[in-house]
This record gives sequence, C-alpha cells and structure tokens, in this order.
Amino acid sequence: MGLAQEVEILRRIPLFANIDPAKLKLMCFASERVTFKDGEVLCRQGETGDSAFIILDGTADVQVKRKEGTMSVATLTKNDIVGEIAILCDVPRTATVLAKGELTTLKVTKELFFGLVKDFPEIGIEIMRVLAHRLEATTGELIAAKAGA
Amino acid sequence: MGLAQEVEILRRIPLFANIDPAKLKLMCFASERVTFKDGEVLCRQGETGDSAFIILDGTADVQVKRKEGTMSVATLTKNDIVGEIAILCDVPRTATVLAKGELTTLKVTKELFFGLVKDFPEIGIEIMRVLAHRLEATTGELIAAKAGA
Repeated sequence: MGLAQEVEILRRIPLFANIDPAKLKLMCFASERVTFKDGEVLCRQGETGDSAFIILDGTADVQVKRKEGTMSVATLTKNDIVGEIAILCDVPRTATVLAKGELTTLKVTKELFFGLVKDFPEIGIEIMRVLAHRLEATTGELIAAKAGA
Repeated sequence: MGLAQEVEILRRIPLFANIDPAKLKLMCFASERVTFKDGEVLCRQGETGDSAFIILDGTADVQVKRKEGTMSVATLTKNDIVGEIAILCDVPRTATVLAKGELTTLKVTKELFFGLVKDFPEIGIEIMRVLAHRLEATTGELIAAKAGA
C-alpha cells in the first residue's frame, strides 16, 4: 500500500479528520502498520506496554482474566483506538486484546503518541473525547450493576 | 486574593505544574474563581453544562439520581477536576455535584478549556491521564461488580 493510500485511510478516521494531510503523511512515516492473524495477540493483560493501536480494518476482542475465568468485555472495530491507557497511566495492560479474523492496525509508540499530541493538540482533544465517552458509558453500567446487585 | 497568590495556587496543582507562570497568569485573568457554601450545587444531573471546575480548596460530593433514589458515587478534593465530561461529550451533566462545607473552585468555560488545551498541549496530556486513570478504576470496579453478581 502506498503512502497516499495510507493517508487517505487515516483521513477517514474521525480522530484525524481535521489534521492537515501533510502532517498525516509525516505520521504515516513515523508509525508502523502491523497486521494480525485470527487469534493473534495485540497486547496481553499484566504485561507492560509502550504502544497503542488504531484499528484500520477488522475486529478485535478485549478479554479480561480473573480468578473465575476469562471474560470478553468489548469488541473493537475500525477506527477504534486501544492500548492508550497503559501509555497514559504507566500501568500494566489492563486487558488482553486478540484479533478476530485478519486485523490491520497502526501501531503508535508512546514516544510518537506524546509527540503527536504536542504537535497537534486537536488529536489530544479527540482522544479526551473518546476517553470521556468511554468513562461515561462505563460509569453508567457500573451504577446500573450496583443498583441491580 | 492577589493575582500572584492565585498563580501560586495553580502552580501547586499537578495539572498546571509544568506550565510557564506567565501563561498561568493569563489563565487566572481568563477564568473565574467561584466559591460555594455547604450544600450549594456546582452542577445538576440532566442539565446542560458549559463549564468544568477545578477544586482549589474544600470537598465536594458527587451524587447520581436513579429511580431507586440518590446515590453518592465519589468525593472530590483539592486539585480534582469535575464537569469536563459534559464539555468533552456534549451530553447533559451525568451527576449532581454539591459542596460539602465551604468550597473554592476555578470555573473553566468550554471556550477557555479548548483554548487552553490548544495553547498548552501539556494540559491536554494531564487531562487524558486523569481520564485514563478514572476509566481504569471504573472498569476494574465494573468487572468486579459483574463477576460478583
């Protein structure tokens, strides 16, 4: 896949929709495209991580291991970002993420991530929006779970 | 309270620790200090909101109303930020926040918030960290609640 095509894919991701294409070109140079086969692991719960992944194509399953067994907690699809918690909080991976079928991702290292946000604060605002939406949804579920318990 | 003192207070807040004091001075000019008496409401669940609050001194209670009654879900203290979800997600306030005793806050409007993050991406990174930590904690609680149910 050529650079122009990669930039086109990034422009379709809401996170990057407002970023100058010339800057996206730089980002494509700096980040790595990684593909996974069905069942392959993007990151594993408990391990330290220095990268986030943006899903360009395919589906991934988010699983959490507990004493009682392994639980599937979410499904990720195109344009989703995963793994940013470990980058932001310096904590071990909180879940295992597995490819369901063939999966294409853009791997963004910690260094590149912070560099991007410093250079393009708009990306930071979009990431804050994604985190805030997830927090709102999770808090709502938690309150419902506690009320129902 | 003089401007120099306000800047000193902001510098002690981790969110602003790395920001140039001259820029913090500008921020003090642009934002509003608001004090609340015991029981007074900072924001009310279900209403639209265009401001976040940084707690400079005192304690606040976060309450969520449901069919079953009102539930206290968190306590906020000095240096905490609250109300940023409504700003980031354009959704109604997800909780009611009340002062517990005398409370001093810095009121940051939506406009100022996005302006700050654009001018000082470091603030955006700190806010992402706060959101990511909250998300990690809430997700952990949710998994525990579901496993126990």
